[in-house]
Amino acid sequence: MALKSFIEVGPDSHFPIQNLPFGIFKPEPTSPPRPGVAIGDYVLDLSTISVSGLFEGPFLSGSDCFLQVPDEAKLRDNPNLREKSLVPMSKVEMLLPIAIGDYTDFFSSMHHARNCGIMFRGPENAINPNWFQLPIAYHGRSSSIVVSGTDIIRPRGQGHPSGNSPPYFGPSRKLDFELEMAAVVGPGNELGKPVDVNEAGDHIFGLVLMNDWSARDIQAWEYVPLGPFLGKSFGKAGNLTFPPLEFILGTTISPWIVTLDALEPFACDAPKQDPQPLPYLAEKISKNYDISLEVQIKPAGQEDSCVVTRSNFNHLYWTVTQQLAHHTINGCNLRPGDLLGTGTISGPEPESYGCLLELTWNGQKSLSLNGTTRKFLEDGDEVVFSGCSKVISFYTFLKETVTKWGLAHALEKSCHHPEHQIALRGIYVS
Amino acid sequence: MALKSFIEVGPDSHFPIQNLPFGIFKPEPTSPPRPGVAIGDYVLDLSTISVSGLFEGPFLSGSDCFLQVPDEAKLRDNPNLREKSLVPMSKVEMLLPIAIGDYTDFFSSMHHARNCGIMFRGPENAINPNWFQLPIAYHGRSSSIVVSGTDIIRPRGQGHPSGNSPPYFGPSRKLDFELEMAAVVGPGNELGKPVDVNEAGDHIFGLVLMNDWSARDIQAWEYVPLGPFLGKSFGKAGNLTFPPLEFILGTTISPWIVTLDALEPFACDAPKQDPQPLPYLAEKISKNYDISLEVQIKPAGQEDSCVVTRSNFNHLYWTVTQQLAHHTINGCNLRPGDLLGTGTISGPEPESYGCLLELTWNGQKSLSLNGTTRKFLEDGDEVVFSGCSKVISFYTFLKETVTKWGLAHALEKSCHHPEHQIALRGIYVS
Repeated sequence: MALKSFIEVGPDSHFPIQNLPFGIFKPEPTSPPRPGVAIGDYVLDLSTISVSGLFEGPFLSGSDCFLQVPDEAKLRDNPNLREKSLVPMSKVEMLLPIAIGDYTDFFSSMHHARNCGIMFRGPENAINPNWFQLPIAYHGRSSSIVVSGTDIIRPRGQGHPSGNSPPYFGPSRKLDFELEMAAVVGPGNELGKPVDVNEAGDHIFGLVLMNDWSARDIQAWEYVPLGPFLGKSFGKAGNLTFPPLEFILGTTISPWIVTLDALEPFACDAPKQDPQPLPYLAEKISKNYDISLEVQIKPAGQEDSCVVTRSNFNHLYWTVTQQLAHHTINGCNLRPGDLLGTGTISGPEPESYGCLLELTWNGQKSLSLNGTTRKFLEDGDEVVFSGCSKVISFYTFLKETVTKWGLAHALEKSCHHPEHQIALRGIYVS
Repeated sequence: MALKSFIEVGPDSHFPIQNLPFGIFKPEPTSPPRPGVAIGDYVLDLSTISVSGLFEGPFLSGSDCFLQVPDEAKLRDNPNLREKSLVPMSKVEMLLPIAIGDYTDFFSSMHHARNCGIMFRGPENAINPNWFQLPIAYHGRSSSIVVSGTDIIRPRGQGHPSGNSPPYFGPSRKLDFELEMAAVVGPGNELGKPVDVNEAGDHIFGLVLMNDWSARDIQAWEYVPLGPFLGKSFGKAGNLTFPPLEFILGTTISPWIVTLDALEPFACDAPKQDPQPLPYLAEKISKNYDISLEVQIKPAGQEDSCVVTRSNFNHLYWTVTQQLAHHTINGCNLRPGDLLGTGTISGPEPESYGCLLELTWNGQKSLSLNGTTRKFLEDGDEVVFSGCSKVISFYTFLKETVTKWGLAHALEKSCHHPEHQIALRGIYVS
C-alpha cells in the first residue's frame, strides 16, 4: 500500500511522501539559510525539527545533522511545531543546495557523442575508440554554478576571425542549453584511495537536474586545444576551422536533490557495454534510472512554452557509479558536495536530442516553436527542464529566462502520478 | 638603504624583510592552523600578534584579519611575545596556504606551446592561431592540490591499447613534472561583472610556485576529446593515435605566497605581443617579473640533486593580469583563493624547457642525471623547484619524492642575495 503523509499532498505535486528531496532554503528573505525537505506544497524546516529535539535517535541526538527518522507523531500532533516547521513552498527562497568543491562533467550519452562526432568529424570516425573504454570527462568551473532561478547572462567573448580581420568580439551568437543531470557526492574518498565501482553508489547522495549553458561560438574559437569539450572533433586534415567546444558559462542546477534511494524503484538495466569494460569499471549490478526528461522553450512575450526535446536518463551508456569509480581510479579525491554531470543526455531519435547544437545541427536548420523558429537561444527565451519517472514526478523544473544581460525565474511544474511507493532510508513524515 | 629587521636574518635565508610571504602553519602537530609570515628562520604567528592587540589600526582593530602594520617596537621589546609569536621555522608544519575554490591552468609560454605543437602536429602549424589572440586555459581540479611536502602517488589508469588488445591498465609509465607558477586571487568579482585588465592586479594577492604533475600516457589515451590539454595537437589527418594531454593528478604548490608588492622591484616589460591584443586585453602597463626558476631531480639513493632545467617567469607571453581579465570577460566569477596557473614555463633554449615531455622530446631522448638517465620520473625521484629574483630569493622550493605509491618532503633552499629593498604594502617587522 502506498505511503501517505499526514500532510495533504495534491495529486499534481512534485513532492509526495515517496520523493522527499533535500534542499537549502530561506523561509524569509532575511532568514539564515537552512536545510529542508519538500513535502507537497510545504518545505519541512529541518533546523526547527532539530531544535525541537525530534531527532532523538543515536545518530542525530545532539547533532546538527538531519539524516534520521523523526517521530512523526510528535510533529503531526503538535500544531505549533507544525506551523513553525512546515513553511509554504510558495513563500520560500531556494538556494544552491550544496557547497560545490569541484565540478566534473562527463560525456556519457553515446547518441550525443555520435552526433557531435558526425557534425565535426564525419560519420566514419564519429566516436573515438577511447569513448567505449572509459567515461570521458572534463573539469568544469564550480564558482559559476547557480540554482534554478538565477539570472543567466549572455556571455561576451571572442569568436572566429573572418579572413585577416581580428577575431569577433561581443555577446555570444550561439547560446545553447544542455539537458543533463548530475550526481551529488555524499561521502568522499581520500587522495590516493580509489573507490570500488561496486561501492560507488554509497558515495552518491542523490541527483539534480542540470542545465549546462554553452556558448558554442565563443568556445569554438577560444578553447582549442585545451578543451574542455569536443576539441578532438577537429579532425579535418590541414583545416584550421575549429569545432564548437562546450563551455561552462554558468551551470544551473535544480534546488532539490533527490536521493538514490528515492530513485531505486525506477532503476533499470544499464545498456550492455561492448567492449566489456576493464575490471575496475565492471559492475556486479549495472543500473540506470528511468527518468523522463523534457526541455521546453518559451519565447519572450508568448503565453505558452513549447517542448523542444524529450529524452530519458536511461540513455546514458556509462552509469553514474562507473563515472564515480573512474574519476577516482588515479587516486583523485572526491569531497562531499562535488558535482558529477552526466553530459548532455540525448536519445537515439532527433526528437530526443539534448541541446540545440544537435536539434538544429549546429544552426543548419531551424526549430519550429509556436509559430516562430530558433537556431540558438534568443534574448528573453525561457528554458524549462523537467524530469519525472514513469509514475511519479521527481523534479521541480528549471525555468530560465535568457536575456541580453540575463534574467531567469524558477517555477514549479508537475508531471505527477501519485500511486507509487518509494522506500526511503532518510526521513519519513508519513 | 636596505630595510633591516630586528630579527636576525642570515644571508642565505629565503625570507629577508623584503619578502615576508604569507602562509598557513601549525606550530605544533596538535595546534590549530593559523596564518604566519616568514622572516629569516622564523614564522611570525599572526594569530598571536592579533590576540596581543598589536593590530590596533582602523582596519584590523577588533578584526581577525592581518593585513596591517603592527607596531614593531611592541614586538621587538616584548621578549615574552617574541618567544610566543616567533616560531622557529624548522619546527612548524606548513599547510596549504589557501582554500582553493576553483583552479584554472593557463598555457601562456609560447615556447612550451610551440614545442608541444611541433611534437604532435609538426612544425608548420605548431601554434594555433587563437593562441596569439587570447590566453588559452582549462579548468583544473581543486581537491587534489596539495602543499609542497605532501606524498605524491603515481596514478593508475588506462593507456593506449596496442592492436586489438584492451587498453593497458596500471601505474603511469610517463610521469612528468611541469614547472609553473600560479597567481592566488585576492578580492573576487561578481558573476557577470568582468574585471578590467588594468585593474586585474588588484585582484591578485600573490604568487606561488606550482608543480603540475602530469601522467602523459594515461591522459594521452583518456582525455580525448575533452582536454584539458593539448587535445588539439591531434592534428594528423585520419590518424587515431593521440597526443599526450596534460592531467592534474595532483598539483603541488609552495607553502608561502609572495605578494605582488614584494615582486614589484623585479617587474620587467612583458614581451611585445603581435598581433595586438583586442582592447579588453590591452594593458596600459604590461609587465612580467624577473624570477629565475630551476628544477632539480635527485634520484633515490643519490646524495646530490641535478639541475634539469633553468627557466624564468618572464618567458610568459600572456601576463597574469591578462589571464585574469580574460578569465572574467564572459562574466565568470573569481573568488578569493582561486588559483590561476601560468602553464608550463619554458624558455627558448632546450636547457630551459619546463617539463620532461619537452626535455626528452616525449621520451625520444634521455636526460643525463649524475651518471644515470631519465626519460620520465622514476620511483624515488625527488623533484625540487626553486624560484628567485636576480638579487633576492623568493621561494621556499618544492621537493617531492615520487615513489610507487608516493612520498614527498619539503625542504628549504637558498638562492639569496641580501642587498635589495622591497617596498611592501603589508606587514613590516623591521
